[in-house]
Order: sequence, then structure tokens, then C-alpha cells
Amino acid sequence: MGDVAARFAEIVGEHNLLSGAQVGEDYARDESLTCEPRKPAYVAKPGAAEEVAALLKTAAEHGIPVTARGSGSGLSGAARPREDGLLVSFERMHAVLEIDADNQVAVVQPGVTLTELDEQTAAAGLAYTVYPGELSASVGGNVGTNAGGMRAVKYGVTRNNVVGLQAVLPTGEIIRTGGKTSKISTGYDLTQLIIGSEGTLALATEVIVKLHPRLAHSATLLAPFNDLDQVVRAVPKVISGGLEPNILEYIDNLTMAAISYNEKLSLGIPDEVRDATQAYLVVGLENRDGDRLDGDVERAGELLGELGATDVYVLDGGSARKLIEAREKAFWTAKSSGADDVIDVVVPRSEMPGFLAKVRELATAAESGAIGCGHAGDGNVHLAIFCKDPEKRHRLLHDIFAAGMAAGGAISGEHGIGQAKKDHYVELEDPAKLELLKRIKQAFDPRGILNPGVLFD
Amino acid sequence: MGDVAARFAEIVGEHNLLSGAQVGEDYARDESLTCEPRKPAYVAKPGAAEEVAALLKTAAEHGIPVTARGSGSGLSGAARPREDGLLVSFERMHAVLEIDADNQVAVVQPGVTLTELDEQTAAAGLAYTVYPGELSASVGGNVGTNAGGMRAVKYGVTRNNVVGLQAVLPTGEIIRTGGKTSKISTGYDLTQLIIGSEGTLALATEVIVKLHPRLAHSATLLAPFNDLDQVVRAVPKVISGGLEPNILEYIDNLTMAAISYNEKLSLGIPDEVRDATQAYLVVGLENRDGDRLDGDVERAGELLGELGATDVYVLDGGSARKLIEAREKAFWTAKSSGADDVIDVVVPRSEMPGFLAKVRELATAAESGAIGCGHAGDGNVHLAIFCKDPEKRHRLLHDIFAAGMAAGGAISGEHGIGQAKKDHYVELEDPAKLELLKRIKQAFDPRGILNPGVLFD
Ligand SMILES: Cc1cc2nc3c(=O)[nH]c(=O)nc-3n(C[C@H](O)[C@H](O)[C@H](O)COP(=O)(O)OP(=O)(O)OC[C@H]3O[C@@H](n4cnc5c(N)ncnc54)[C@H](O)[C@@H]3O)c2cc1C
Ligand SMILES: Cc1cc2nc3c(=O)[nH]c(=O)nc-3n(C[C@H](O)[C@H](O)[C@H](O)COP(=O)(O)OP(=O)(O)OC[C@H]3O[C@@H](n4cnc5c(N)ncnc54)[C@H](O)[C@@H]3O)c2cc1C
Repeated sequence: MGDVAARFAEIVGEHNLLSGAQVGEDYARDESLTCEPRKPAYVAKPGAAEEVAALLKTAAEHGIPVTARGSGSGLSGAARPREDGLLVSFERMHAVLEIDADNQVAVVQPGVTLTELDEQTAAAGLAYTVYPGELSASVGGNVGTNAGGMRAVKYGVTRNNVVGLQAVLPTGEIIRTGGKTSKISTGYDLTQLIIGSEGTLALATEVIVKLHPRLAHSATLLAPFNDLDQVVRAVPKVISGGLEPNILEYIDNLTMAAISYNEKLSLGIPDEVRDATQAYLVVGLENRDGDRLDGDVERAGELLGELGATDVYVLDGGSARKLIEAREKAFWTAKSSGADDVIDVVVPRSEMPGFLAKVRELATAAESGAIGCGHAGDGNVHLAIFCKDPEKRHRLLHDIFAAGMAAGGAISGEHGIGQAKKDHYVELEDPAKLELLKRIKQAFDPRGILNPGVLFD
Repeated sequence: MGDVAARFAEIVGEHNLLSGAQVGEDYARDESLTCEPRKPAYVAKPGAAEEVAALLKTAAEHGIPVTARGSGSGLSGAARPREDGLLVSFERMHAVLEIDADNQVAVVQPGVTLTELDEQTAAAGLAYTVYPGELSASVGGNVGTNAGGMRAVKYGVTRNNVVGLQAVLPTGEIIRTGGKTSKISTGYDLTQLIIGSEGTLALATEVIVKLHPRLAHSATLLAPFNDLDQVVRAVPKVISGGLEPNILEYIDNLTMAAISYNEKLSLGIPDEVRDATQAYLVVGLENRDGDRLDGDVERAGELLGELGATDVYVLDGGSARKLIEAREKAFWTAKSSGADDVIDVVVPRSEMPGFLAKVRELATAAESGAIGCGHAGDGNVHLAIFCKDPEKRHRLLHDIFAAGMAAGGAISGEHGIGQAKKDHYVELEDPAKLELLKRIKQAFDPRGILNPGVLFD
């Protein structure tokens, strides 16, 4: 063990420092389909902010790159460490420190998983309403990627639900940002700057998240449409109808077939309806009051009919849960179907029809496949890309990203840029913005130790 | 006219450049009670982003400090220009460029006032739901201060309602951040960083704001309490009750007396109730459906009774409007009553009772007065400070701010730091954070031309 390793081990305790052959495969990767696994030189599992600070100081002294890892469920390779680097795994820091019902916030350690947090908030009648598809993800990882998920259409993404942080700067200081209050006008908002920075600016060691009352009544509607364009055109109308859906997803017919098959999902849709369907809209509604919910379900049904749905199914609890779970597993379905990449371009929701038409055109021209589903309420289009040739795929992705940006959107709505999409980002982003981002990075991290090679070089 | 003035005039047109005696008194100040007016050397009124960019480039070349001005209604002296400086007034850039109902956003120029925006969104059945007390304020100024206001308890502050910007960097580039979508995970969030930066990082030349459906039905409840502590203790319960109030204000008895007197407000509260009252809670409710609203009003009434209200008045539309307007004018009432400063500390809402007790104690010890009202739902305590002696007042404010921070809050919830509270901010803020903020400032503004002397030196 070298000098540095000895120092790291001293900081976190010997059992919590892995190096060489002790480093398991899992630490070499996240769930990105395109980033090759790469084992780090060291894995440290700190137990407290002070240990994280000491690790970063030591790393800075020795010029060792540092990558933070939550649960490694990210889809952009942002938690994939450097070969010569230190991976800081937050797996031991997973306590829910406080559930504060009066201020409707929880204070948690970054390694807590969404499943763990959900269990503990449920006991208090509250909920942390950011539900990305993978609930083994950690809150720290969510902060890293600004995670979204299905409920974002009603509750917003991580950015809208985190009000404060304790964070360690790459220069070794421990700072606190924000607090148990949702408004502050006192200096630049460091909470917001750190959220979505993919572990490149600071490491979160405590997170204050907003909680909402857990509503007792919910319903899920499934509406088949004969035309994908009609589905996405319906989306703005459902939103402006004022029903405040907490889920508004589209699923194209191929994706529905694949997830139904993989997850043995049977929704009782007659064959003739299914065969004529090009895409589905899934609408989730919830209310604290059962009667109000019933009223909303009725209105939503009427509205969907007016908007061109060929039928509307109100799913029973079991089927609804299964459909949502299957939808959440769409990534695994895509992966097992041999998808070569999975992306999540975001566009203004009114631009989805045009954007999807453009995607079809580009994919056809590239003799490739692009099928998908997405958080339609947010204009977040998740596409599984089938295109084996790396160069051809790079060009196709480039064109799809450029089309999304031209429509007023961005390369990623919630998965982030990481290492997987960095080349595209650097090619397509406004150079003036990129330079500014680099100067901000420099302001936080003069030695450049935090996640080098993520976002930009 | 000097060289620089000639260049400025060339950029914006001669009629739109004022200097020397042409510069009116109003440009010398905002509404801060403690910052002496100070006329700038030049006032430029650009008509387009390109002109703003050219102004900033010229100013940077000549090392001329630049202050942005919206409507000058700020309360922290952040729009008070430098004597040797250029004031960029956005008064000519006040168009609503687009109301996009499908994406529920509006694209506006920064100089548009909230009154103007409200009129135009109303016509589309939509609303921009950030309503600080002063509706002559501009959206650009709101971005500068991260303005809040009464509706923030339901809809959030400016930060939660602005999804994109066009902005001019002090280095002269025009960038676009965010977009017509409420989620993006593509690089650091510059929108959020610029919001609340009080004109020190970049100047907004276009703002994309979220809109919400304008709900048809609303009601206002007024609940007197015999004990201020009870009022503020009731606040978390009203929120967790799930009624989603869009207004949740407390008004102490002295402030209520003053605003009632000044605004000739008569709410029909019997004398004996009024005389026993120490403070009032104002609860606003709204719904798209009249019956649902009625149900909520009933529940809210019961709840307030249980929480200790001595009575609950459901105000008729006219009285409700008058009360809200009077509350919004509390600042003018404080000013005309001879208040020496007005501050807006924010604390976690559960900490309000303790914080207010501490304030009373500090004010009594300093033989000074501190009375107020506030956005109780957010823990935002607005206090009028009566203390003539500047040194004594500085110490009192210092202690009040420190108490707010110790309670987990911050110096300002929505008014900002500006020049008025800079000394306190610099004294009380964590030095590591302050250094980081300065490095971020440097990353944006290497020449230090944007609003020097605001936030920190
Ligand atoms: C099946 C499946 C479905 C998914 N569905 C969604 C979805 O609907 N919406 C969505 O947004 N995402 C989705 N994801 C992606 C993933 O779950 C999210 O990106 C999640 O935020 C990652 O959390 P993690 O703990 O696994 O983070 P990791 O992958 O470990 O790390 C993600 C990033 O955060 C950084 N990071 C980790 N911890 C910290 C910390 N404490 N401080 C600072 N930075 C840190 C890492 O360095 C890295 O840059 C899905 C993934 C899968 C596999
Ligand atoms: C009676 C009264 C009641 C009030 N009530 C509230 C309240 O309830 N909640 C609340 O939050 N505030 C309140 N305020 C304060 C004030 O209305 C807000 O601070 C408002 O945001 C200021 O807007 P403005 O256009 O007047 O900005 P200005 O005072 O002109 O400027 C404010 C800041 O924004 C910067 N700025 C202006 N334009 C731009 C731009 N285009 N780009 C970047 N920066 C810019 C300025 O440089 C300055 O730093 C109240 C004020 C009064 C007088």
C-alpha cells in the first residue's frame, strides 16, 4: 500500500478503503450502455462529512482525481471512475437524519436510497416526490444528475425539491447551503449550482429535501391512440385542463409490446384496439379526497376521448402498479432487446410531435431504430437507439441532439451528460457558455480533481 | 460629452442616453430606507440585447461600473448606481414577446412590469404567479432579487417560476440558458445562478416564465388570535392540512392597526375581539371549482378554530382585496410611520415563534421597536425597525440577522442583500462560502464591472 492509500485508510478506517484486487467490478461502472467499465485505484467509504473533507484534501495534495458514487444507477457514465482515481462511495452514509413534519422537509445523508427514504417518509404520512425509474438510486446521485422521473410533471425534478445541502468543496471546506426554507435571497444559490453538476463541483454530504403530504387516493388511466402525433398533441391540453396529473407518460406501441412481453403485463386491452394503436398515453391522478378524485377521473376520461383516444381504461390498482413498474423498467427492456444506447432529449412539450417526426426521419435515413417512451408532460423523450456502428451512431445521435436543441430543448432532461454524451455536448453547446462553465468549474475546483472528464475536459 | 458618452449614445441612440443634469432623481435610488441617493454618470435605455452587449463591452473597456435597473422598487439598494457608473435602465424593453399556452410559459423582456404581465396573461386565462407586494416591479428586477411575495407559499418564488433566460455576460456575449421546459440536466444551471445575483453576474434581456391556469374561485379568511405565538404555531398545521393555501400571512396587531388606519380598512371585527387580539392570520384559498373551494373554506375554518383562533371571518371579495392591498402596502405604512429600516429575515417556519421572541427581546434591550408582518407560510418575517441611532441599529440588526441564521435561516428571504445589508452579510457569512462566491463572481466578471459594491466588495 502506497503512502496515499495509507492516508486514505487512516481517514476512513482500513475496512472502508479498497484498492487493487479488492475493488469489485460494480465500482467500475454505472448503467450507461456505452461507457466501458474502468476500475479505480481506490474506493473509500466515508462515514462522515469530515472524512470526505479529509479525503478531498489528500486527493488534492496528490493530484488524484475523485469520483463520487451513490448507487451507480446513472445512465451517463458520470459515476465511472478514473483508473488512477479515488472513488468515494457514499454507501455507508445512508441515514435519514430527520423527518421534520412542521417544515415538511427531511434531512438525509447522500447515500440513502429512494426506497429507504420512501419507507421512512411513508411512516410519517409524507412523501419525497422525486421518483426516477430506479428506486435503488441514492439522493446524492439524484443531486448529481438532477434526477426527474414520472412524477416530475406535477412535483418537479430534484432541483425543485432540494432546499439545502451540506457539501464538501474540492478545496476541503465543508459548507452549508440553503436551509429548511424554500426561499432565500442571500448570495448566489450554491444549492442550485451543485445540483446537476454531476459530481464536478462539490460532494453533497447532507441533503435537505422537501416533503409533501402523501395523498390517499390515486388512479391511473391508459388511453390508446391510433396516431403517435395525436398522443403528444394531447399532452399540453391535458395539462392546461388543470387536472394536475402526477403522471403523464407516452409509450409507443413497440415499447409497449416489449415491456408487456418482458413483464408479463396483461392490461385487458382487446386485440383489435391494440393492433390499431400507435401509442398510449398514461395519465396518473391523485387527490386527498376520494370523491374529488372520482370527479377528476371522469373529466380526464372525457377529455382524452375529445383529444382522440380510441378508448380510455381506468386501471385497477394492481394493473396500474404493474404498468408503472413495467414502464420504469423500460430501460432494462431496451437493454435486453439489444439497444445500443438510451438517450433522454428534452424539448418544449408542444415541440414533441415535430421532434419525434424528425427522429423517425433521421433514424430511417441512418437505417437505424429509435423507439421509445417518455415523460411527455415535461417534453422528455426517452429513446432506445438501435445502431451498431459506432460512427454512424455518433452521427445519428449528433443529429438527434441538434434537432432537440433546435426545437428549444437540450441534450438531456434528467440523465445528464456524464462521459457518455460529453463529445456531443462539447460539439453542440454555445462556446461562450462552455467557457463560462469551465471558469465556474475552476472557481470551485482549482486543482481539477473532481470528476475530470465528465461534462467537458 | 466625453468619448465614452458618445459611444454609449451611438449604441442606444442619443435620446436614450442621459448624462449630467439630464439624469433624474429617480435613477439615483431604489426604495431602500437606508441608502442615500447617488446619481450615476450615465443612464442608458437600451432597446435590444445587442445594445446591452455593446454597452457592457464598452463599459468593460473603460472600466466603468454598470448597474441594471428595472423599476427601482427594490428594498436593498441593489439598483442604486455608482457615481462614476452607467445605469442600464430596462424601461424600454418591456414587451411581452409571447404567451405560449401549450407550454404554459411567457417570454418577456426584462422591463415588463408585473401589472403589464398580469393584464396580458389574464387575457389568456393564465397567470404568472409571483406577486411581490409592488406590482410596478419588473420581471428583470424580480430575477435580480429572486422576488417572492404572498403567493410564494403555494407557487414558489421567482427561482421556481423562471425556466430560461437570455442574458448578456459582462464580457459582452449574449447567451441563452434553460428553455421552455422545466427540466434540463445539461451542464450547470446558469438560469438559477443568475437569479438572485442582484445584477452582479449577468443582465437578463429575456425571461421565460412559467404560467399557471388562472383559477376562477378564491376566498380569504381572517383569523384573530390572542397570542402571536399561537398564530405562528398554527402555520405549519395549516400547511400540512393539505389545503394548499395560496396566501398565509401573519400581521401583528400594531401593524394591523397602522395599515387599517392608513388604508381606511374596515373589516367588521368587533371592538372586543380586536382589542384582545395580538396577531392575525390571513389565509387565502383558491380552486378551479366553486364547490371544492366551499369545502376547503369550511375545513380551513374548523382547523383555525382548533388551532386557537378566537374567530374566523370569511371576507367578502371587496374587503379581501382591500386587506391584501393594505398588507402589500405595509412597507409604505412602515415608512410613513418613521421606520428606520425594513428587513425580511427568513427562518424555517417552525422556528418563527422562537425567532420572534428573540427579536422582541433584542429590540427591548436596545430600547427600539420591531413590529411586523410576514409571509408566514415561508417563514419570511418582515420587520419594521424603529431605532434612530445608526450604530445601535447596526448592532440590533446584526443580532437579529445572527439569530435568524442561528435558527437555520438567512438574512433575507426575498429582498436581497444589495448595498443595504452588505456589511452584515460579509460579517456573518461563512468565509469559505464568501470566498467561493467571489471566485464565481470573478468567473463571470473578470473586470468586476457589474454592480460592484453589491453583495460584497
Ligand atoms: C432502470 C432505470 C431507470 C431510470 N429512470 C430514471 C428516471 O426516470 N429519471 C431519472 O432522472 N433517472 C433515471 N435513471 C437514472 C438514475 O437512476 C439517476 O441518474 C439517479 O440519479 C442516479 O443515482 P445514483 O445514486 O445511482 O447515482 P450514481 O450513478 O452513483 O451517480 C450519478 C452522479 O451523481 C454523482 N454523485 C453521486 N453521489 C454524489 C454526492 N453525494 N454528491 C455529489 N455528486 C454525487 C456521481 O459522481 C455522478 O456524477 C434510471 C436508471 C435506471 C437504471
Ligand atoms: C411596497 C413594496 C412592497 C414590496 N413587496 C415585496 C414582496 O412582497 N416580495 C418581494 O420579493 N419584494 C418586495 N418588494 C421589493 C421589490 O418589489 C422587489 O425587490 C422587486 O424584485 C424589484 O423589482 P424592480 O424591477 O423594481 O428591480 P430594481 O429595484 O430596479 O432592481 C433590483 C435588482 O435587480 C437587478 N436587475 C434589474 N433588472 C435586471 C436585469 N434585467 N437583469 C439582471 N438584474 C437586473 C438590479 O441591478 C438590482 O440588483 C416590495 C417593494 C415595495 C416598494
